[in-house]
Amino acid sequence: MDPRQHEYRVLHEADLRDYLAGLPEITARLGGAPAFWSIGEVGDGNLNLVFIVKGTAGGVAVKQALPYVRLVGEGWPLPLSRSHYEYLALTHQARLAPGLVPDVLHHNEALALVVMELLAPHIIMRKRLVAGTIYPRFVEDITTFLARTLFLSSDLAVSAAEKKEGIAAFAGNHALCKITEDLIFTDPYRVAEQNRWTQPWLDATAAAFRENLDLHVAISRLKLKFLNAAEALIHGDLHTGSIMVTESETKVIDPEFAFYGPMGFDIGAVIANLLMAYLASAGHERSPGERRAFEAWVLETVEGVWTEFARKFLELWRTQAGGDAYPRTLFEGEVGAARLETERQAYMARLFEDTVGFAAAKIIRRILGLAHNIDFELIEDPKRRAISEARSLRLARTMMVDVASFSTIGTVTKAAREVRDWQPDFA
Amino acid sequence: MDPRQHEYRVLHEADLRDYLAGLPEITARLGGAPAFWSIGEVGDGNLNLVFIVKGTAGGVAVKQALPYVRLVGEGWPLPLSRSHYEYLALTHQARLAPGLVPDVLHHNEALALVVMELLAPHIIMRKRLVAGTIYPRFVEDITTFLARTLFLSSDLAVSAAEKKEGIAAFAGNHALCKITEDLIFTDPYRVAEQNRWTQPWLDATAAAFRENLDLHVAISRLKLKFLNAAEALIHGDLHTGSIMVTESETKVIDPEFAFYGPMGFDIGAVIANLLMAYLASAGHERSPGERRAFEAWVLETVEGVWTEFARKFLELWRTQAGGDAYPRTLFEGEVGAARLETERQAYMARLFEDTVGFAAAKIIRRILGLAHNIDFELIEDPKRRAISEARSLRLARTMMVDVASFSTIGTVTKAAREVRDWQPDFA
Repeated sequence: MDPRQHEYRVLHEADLRDYLAGLPEITARLGGAPAFWSIGEVGDGNLNLVFIVKGTAGGVAVKQALPYVRLVGEGWPLPLSRSHYEYLALTHQARLAPGLVPDVLHHNEALALVVMELLAPHIIMRKRLVAGTIYPRFVEDITTFLARTLFLSSDLAVSAAEKKEGIAAFAGNHALCKITEDLIFTDPYRVAEQNRWTQPWLDATAAAFRENLDLHVAISRLKLKFLNAAEALIHGDLHTGSIMVTESETKVIDPEFAFYGPMGFDIGAVIANLLMAYLASAGHERSPGERRAFEAWVLETVEGVWTEFARKFLELWRTQAGGDAYPRTLFEGEVGAARLETERQAYMARLFEDTVGFAAAKIIRRILGLAHNIDFELIEDPKRRAISEARSLRLARTMMVDVASFSTIGTVTKAAREVRDWQPDFA
Repeated sequence: MDPRQHEYRVLHEADLRDYLAGLPEITARLGGAPAFWSIGEVGDGNLNLVFIVKGTAGGVAVKQALPYVRLVGEGWPLPLSRSHYEYLALTHQARLAPGLVPDVLHHNEALALVVMELLAPHIIMRKRLVAGTIYPRFVEDITTFLARTLFLSSDLAVSAAEKKEGIAAFAGNHALCKITEDLIFTDPYRVAEQNRWTQPWLDATAAAFRENLDLHVAISRLKLKFLNAAEALIHGDLHTGSIMVTESETKVIDPEFAFYGPMGFDIGAVIANLLMAYLASAGHERSPGERRAFEAWVLETVEGVWTEFARKFLELWRTQAGGDAYPRTLFEGEVGAARLETERQAYMARLFEDTVGFAAAKIIRRILGLAHNIDFELIEDPKRRAISEARSLRLARTMMVDVASFSTIGTVTKAAREVRDWQPDFA
């Protein structure tokens, strides 16, 4: 047990007011007398308390971890230390990708508390995707975040010693990793009490996923990679609910699942959630075709996420390769440089394959596992919802078991476009 | 700096005698008055001091790390903490593979000192291979060591939480990993001051290895795997100089390079060193063909190391799979079990490919890099030595760049047998 765990207490509104009043930097930012600050609990995630605090001058967001999974209750304990890892990740990401994560203003490890700048008027991206909103900046920002946080924490950029220190610093976050290992890489493929899906329409598909051994082999290989491949500091939960946007800004939040894992898991998460937004879109139509422009943008965005990520990652590799991997001295001269460039392309092809596989895993867990998402959940007619979900599962299954057939991001969006017009048996 | 580093001092014979006299368990084991103990420094490795201490009742071996690389001197500092990691590894390996590592009797972290049972009449295996001695027990023992230490520390056997704790416990051993990263995965392929080879015969080959970009890509991919793939607690330096043998016993010593890395690195180390013993053997012949029986045994041993390792590893997987990878619940019933068995074979095929590549890397570094081995060095005629070395490099180059052509261990021994009769240009 953390020696300071006895200092932990859940902060209710009055406690929080007193606590923040004792922090000069925070009181200055908020402005006005503490008694007049407005404090509201707004956490809609699965794990934590989140307070918005506003004063006369400004606001802050306060996130406190609970010693259990909020979505499930005290029966599912979860270590408070995740707040420490979130703090570590946020501050490291801020160095690697400036401006793309919220500023941390204060951290109290014993209280499992992080105080951050209030992101306003930012909105959770997933909500706006459900509404059909286009964000032209998104590709630019998210690919900068992905390329910089992944490349700059990898063996391509840092020494092996620095990377091993990073691995050790995050190794204690295994309880959060375990959630991923179970809920993404295991449960959707077996009978598990917490699984749920849109019944009765997806009953047969859910059963098929529990029986399909090609899928079980593929998900097990991905799980092994998640367990073994300490490639870079990954966010670990990079869905569109972990991204806040305005017309002009993108902020990545909630990195409490961060650890040194496979890069493709983060890239795949972004692509998966965009593909779900695309295939859920038909369910949100009030008149046929009204969201076609939005849907076209989503698929362009899927393509842009990979191509711009790859371009930026390669550019960093060409210009900031200070790590121990692929030492420049083995690729000298023009011929050497050309060969290294060929190898970089091969590296990206392997990373793309990982990305497609992890993206498939992230789609499947949102439809057959415990944690669903509002892209589908807000489709009121359950049969229409099931149609969108069945299309997504069909795409994800192919991506997972036939990953080799997806050689470019264009083949992924082509498959998405085709499955958009596919009618499941029950339709 | 380690807060206790100021307590460190190099123990000379008199200090060591006083120190051991203060340890009741050690004095009891040694027997007789401390003044009558014989103490001799016998370290012939590259890094440390090793003392053999004998009393009237028995003996102990004492290993003390120096704050620099013994082979090179004070100009190459190396952290004393490696003694702590050696202790951690020895005690963990003793639990995983009982009887196959020396018993640890005492450890003093501040002095970077480990006291172990004296292995007598055990002899460093490499010395006996040079002499042409056959060890029929070797395959049985080393494959038990490999299968048990690798399987039982992997995600196939332990929970992800336990494995991450292990990764963190060894992450600080990065200075020793860095030696491997430089001396094995980098230097032999570039101009490096410390490189040496048998001149002038290997000049052209050494130059070719510094120019061959296929090799540079292959070694870089292996290096990346060494940096990234936290598969299991590996010994990290498992050559035949780290193995002590008698007719009836095998002991694996010196795990100071231990960390969580790719399994194939350990298996490849054993196979590489056997292949070098095989190809060096002709250089030790006093009459043509006199070592044919030994050489046949070595190649049988190479085959046995892989096949028995694979058999034992698979058997452990079938019977002791308590880890988070490949959860049994995804492979239920007869059909599921059969599919999991197929996947186990595919896993072993991937591990074999790693093994072949790492074996090649281990051969090349011993001929073109800093640290050579007596298999070759004791061939007095430098031209004969160069012939054995050139054959080894020819084999290793193919294993590294054309790894896919080695589908079974039989293809490796077949290639070794063929290269045994190949005459380099200069011969």
